[in-house]
Amino acid sequence: MKQSLLFTKTQKFAPKDEQAKNAQFLIRAGYVHKEMAGAYSLLPLGMRSVEKIKQIVREEMNALGSNELIMTGIQRKELWDSTGRWGDDVVDVWFKSELKNGAEVGFGWSHEEPIGDMMKSHIASFRDLPTSVFQFQTKLRNEKRAKSGIMRGREFVMKDMYSFSADEKQHERFYASCIEAYKRVFDRLGVGEDTFVTFAAGGAFTEFSHEFQTVCEAGEDVIYINRKKDIAINEEVLNEKTLKSLGVTRGQLEKVKTAETGNIFNFGTEKGESLGLFYTDEEGQKIPVWMGSYGIGVTRMLGVLVEKFADEKGIVLPESVAPFRVHLIDLQQSEKSQEIYDALNKNGIDVLWDDRDVRPGEKFADSDLIGIPWRVVVSQKSLDSGGFEVKNRMEDNAVVVSLNGLLEILK
Amino acid sequence: MKQSLLFTKTQKFAPKDEQAKNAQFLIRAGYVHKEMAGAYSLLPLGMRSVEKIKQIVREEMNALGSNELIMTGIQRKELWDSTGRWGDDVVDVWFKSELKNGAEVGFGWSHEEPIGDMMKSHIASFRDLPTSVFQFQTKLRNEKRAKSGIMRGREFVMKDMYSFSADEKQHERFYASCIEAYKRVFDRLGVGEDTFVTFAAGGAFTEFSHEFQTVCEAGEDVIYINRKKDIAINEEVLNEKTLKSLGVTRGQLEKVKTAETGNIFNFGTEKGESLGLFYTDEEGQKIPVWMGSYGIGVTRMLGVLVEKFADEKGIVLPESVAPFRVHLIDLQQSEKSQEIYDALNKNGIDVLWDDRDVRPGEKFADSDLIGIPWRVVVSQKSLDSGGFEVKNRMEDNAVVVSLNGLLEILK
Repeated sequence: MKQSLLFTKTQKFAPKDEQAKNAQFLIRAGYVHKEMAGAYSLLPLGMRSVEKIKQIVREEMNALGSNELIMTGIQRKELWDSTGRWGDDVVDVWFKSELKNGAEVGFGWSHEEPIGDMMKSHIASFRDLPTSVFQFQTKLRNEKRAKSGIMRGREFVMKDMYSFSADEKQHERFYASCIEAYKRVFDRLGVGEDTFVTFAAGGAFTEFSHEFQTVCEAGEDVIYINRKKDIAINEEVLNEKTLKSLGVTRGQLEKVKTAETGNIFNFGTEKGESLGLFYTDEEGQKIPVWMGSYGIGVTRMLGVLVEKFADEKGIVLPESVAPFRVHLIDLQQSEKSQEIYDALNKNGIDVLWDDRDVRPGEKFADSDLIGIPWRVVVSQKSLDSGGFEVKNRMEDNAVVVSLNGLLEILK
Repeated sequence: MKQSLLFTKTQKFAPKDEQAKNAQFLIRAGYVHKEMAGAYSLLPLGMRSVEKIKQIVREEMNALGSNELIMTGIQRKELWDSTGRWGDDVVDVWFKSELKNGAEVGFGWSHEEPIGDMMKSHIASFRDLPTSVFQFQTKLRNEKRAKSGIMRGREFVMKDMYSFSADEKQHERFYASCIEAYKRVFDRLGVGEDTFVTFAAGGAFTEFSHEFQTVCEAGEDVIYINRKKDIAINEEVLNEKTLKSLGVTRGQLEKVKTAETGNIFNFGTEKGESLGLFYTDEEGQKIPVWMGSYGIGVTRMLGVLVEKFADEKGIVLPESVAPFRVHLIDLQQSEKSQEIYDALNKNGIDVLWDDRDVRPGEKFADSDLIGIPWRVVVSQKSLDSGGFEVKNRMEDNAVVVSLNGLLEILK
């Protein structure tokens, strides 16, 4: 894409009320626009990054055989009454409104209830199980305070998946395969090493749930990890019993601040029973369906990546998530730029071509702020030395290469 | 995709309270799930069709040089106060709620205000104009009655685009190019012949706005058309003055029922002035920006297509919109099916393979209900005659072809 066609401008300053580093950089670089605390519109750069995160997650969920769908945001009171989760005393993040006839409606902060209810039309027999569905949903949560930028929003994008199994064994198999899929997701997002499957508080059916916690100074959680043994424990369940069952001592654990980037949860048959989601087994018996839920915070993930990797000049993102892989900076209005631009596009490499008529210093500062992984500069100096300068956003020094050399680097 | 992995089941009956033909078929075929009147979740088949419509629209908007983004659903009261559109007496489709601190918020039924306001951070000079942005947004509208299925929802997907121009000439140029882009969209959606650029009521700045009206018995509008002269007039502006200015008489017009599938609107400088969206011209003068808005009802479009093309057996969709192009029906559990499936996937042709262990009659009935354009049947009879049966959903007779013959048909 030519930068002259990108309508966003970088900003010198973020809004004064914006405290979070991730939002400050994302606003200044033109990834997002702040509508209000906890609600950010995704501008073209931000949307591209979020779509890349979504695509990675989608591919891994598809590989589990899960079916993508999209539920409504709008929610019926009666459905949530049936599981006792309509009341503001039970769930304190509801946004509620009403229809013209006075009937109360809510806006989806989660979707276990509507998805479980919808499944009653599609699950009848043991032959229909196991199955699972997932969606990328814009969730609305009426958070009391929202000051972590896009890491905790009143409106945010989440991938939520739900599994439906005939029995505990089937359920455990899917649950375990999802943990592996999530590990692949976080690897591909560039935070595999720093993301821990963490024991956290469970529910009625299980002693523990599992959180995926990514080490991040701006995170809201504290966990205790042992990197060697690959053990992580949320402080909420850090007690003698947990330590003993995991075969680790308090002294062997390191305390780190983290952001919860994923979680998986076992409902057992509790949800199925309260929603009336049953199947008929081989003997003709009606049995409640086992349910699990599996979340990944998609827009939160972008915030976490910015928090973790940004430097004083601006955003740094993994190549898998950056809005473009290459920032082509033309200081010469040279034909060479067109040639590079065409060659990269032809090779399926995303490139943002800064073809604007502005000072070199402004181009470089914008490039660092936006944080595209590879910067390619076409200058008189580079042309004289027979190529153009290539520099990685995380390194200080550029190398001069030919077009083939560049394609080799990006392969 | 193998149909055994698709979790949805076709249904013999739609919910009793569902009156609209489009929703009845879409529910029965497993495209959508009804959450409440006017709110339908998109199940995998429905999501695939909606994504195909979106992709066609996206390609044509990108070709105009427009930038894709996604605004928040949540809306600040103050912003809409500034244009006098917060009051329920002015806009009667708001869903409103409030933050924990008591501040009122609304949910986006339209996005002119937030997009115009956001643009203040990115438009400063005449050099920044013209520009335009678009989004696929889930709109929430608190409709009093919602009984047209997915053709008029309380929650629905719309493509809305907004243009920003320095003066009337720039504005008119974009406006005209958008009309042409919309014509290409409706052609690709299979309703080009039946969709009319229609004169409708204008606003403060123009005598007329333009609607795209698609002939459809289930539509809520009535327009008057002259196919030869390619003239269409919404009944709301059908008067002597309009007839005279278009050079047509009442007697030359045919009355048809239509659904509004797109509309474009000229705000002139009114919106820019009320939002404070100005630019600086070459002489350093502050000038209000010209704005236009351009909508296409994405989920509505799917409803209109079902209404227009369905027959007594079920859904019929254009190849560009159907969730899959080919429905492969295996009656023999033959290796031939795997071969066809692999070949189609390799050639980038979407195929749903009915590998389920159910009666042939059920497979055929489901196939007709789902309405995938090409049905390919592998049976002993077809294998004996050296190939397999291929039938278009809109035709009665099948032909027996080889794999190469099939690929030729689908090319």
